[in-house]
Amino acid sequence: MIDLYTASTFNGQRVSIMLEEIGLAYSVYKINLATGEQKQADFLKLNSSGRIPVLVDHDNKEAEPLVLTQSVAILLYLAEKTGKLIPESLPARAKVYEWMNFHAVDIGSTIFNAFYLQQRCSPKQIEAAEKLTSKIHEHYRYFDEQLANNEYLAGGNYSIADITALPVVITQQQKLNEYPNLTRWVQQLKQRPAVQRGMAVPAKEVSHEN
Amino acid sequence: MIDLYTASTFNGQRVSIMLEEIGLAYSVYKINLATGEQKQADFLKLNSSGRIPVLVDHDNKEAEPLVLTQSVAILLYLAEKTGKLIPESLPARAKVYEWMNFHAVDIGSTIFNAFYLQQRCSPKQIEAAEKLTSKIHEHYRYFDEQLANNEYLAGGNYSIADITALPVVITQQQKLNEYPNLTRWVQQLKQRPAVQRGMAVPAKEVSHEN
Repeated sequence: MIDLYTASTFNGQRVSIMLEEIGLAYSVYKINLATGEQKQADFLKLNSSGRIPVLVDHDNKEAEPLVLTQSVAILLYLAEKTGKLIPESLPARAKVYEWMNFHAVDIGSTIFNAFYLQQRCSPKQIEAAEKLTSKIHEHYRYFDEQLANNEYLAGGNYSIADITALPVVITQQQKLNEYPNLTRWVQQLKQRPAVQRGMAVPAKEVSHEN
Repeated sequence: MIDLYTASTFNGQRVSIMLEEIGLAYSVYKINLATGEQKQADFLKLNSSGRIPVLVDHDNKEAEPLVLTQSVAILLYLAEKTGKLIPESLPARAKVYEWMNFHAVDIGSTIFNAFYLQQRCSPKQIEAAEKLTSKIHEHYRYFDEQLANNEYLAGGNYSIADITALPVVITQQQKLNEYPNLTRWVQQLKQRPAVQRGMAVPAKEVSHEN
């Protein structure tokens, strides 16, 4: 009932980890970013902004399938649909929103901008990319502090805040030596079978039936 | 019952517009970013990441006041607390999340990174800042398309998606000539009394009793 159009990027992995964690059946459609498939007509009909991930939920209580982009929006939607990986009490849920957005807005987007300046620009803007990267590491000091006192990002329970952050933090893994708590958290989450399965999507273009 | 620590930035204005729209009484504490007040001990006790806005809700059904940072998280919290500016049906709410995150993650954060590279770096990275700014305008073309067919960003109803985007779009106002629908939307929202009041916070360090 759920289709996921995705690629091996941290935005895509957030959604596949989430789907594996909550145990909903879904079909995977791999979008080849290297050949620009995300800018071709078929894909643009689905998401005219030309980016992955896109989730299509055919079972959403409306006449039309729900077509949803933006990894953070998809995580919020799936958490509310299933009641999983999000706390019931509003103050606790608000802290999940806080850590989720901290990572998506201040870190994920900055890493993406640094990648763009370093790899996709002409001429490449190497020094500027390094300036942005050093900002990210200031933020990780703050995450490390939080994880010194809490098992998970938003407190005692694993949540969509952790799923938002994990695939991004993994891309920075060679630089995590100075953050012992963040390193502990990465190692712990990487042992979860659902995380392992979700990180491996879209290795194969097959249906993932849970 | 609500304290708002803020400054005249788009992140701060999102929250003051929201509080004015939903009509909750709140007290404003102006944080002077120019003198670095956000990095001083008193403020760091409230938010150890040293940034505004911070909302403190003394009336949140818990023993302790809720201290919340991240403008998008605060908007979600206030919408859920009051049931205002967010749709009840899950698919409609998901589209609000989508547009909200599109703006916060892909545009707001990129504008902030461009500002950082242009104004706060040493040496300044002017060319890189311009590269990031041109990316923002690609996204605004997509917003303009959406607003050609919809009165508000996430469809027919004003929502926290509009409040997330508006104070950011206003910072780009001199460049909006080529986006007629985005311009129409800005002009329409600027006529709302709550938007006018919210944009003017924190002009005075006084209590805003609604």
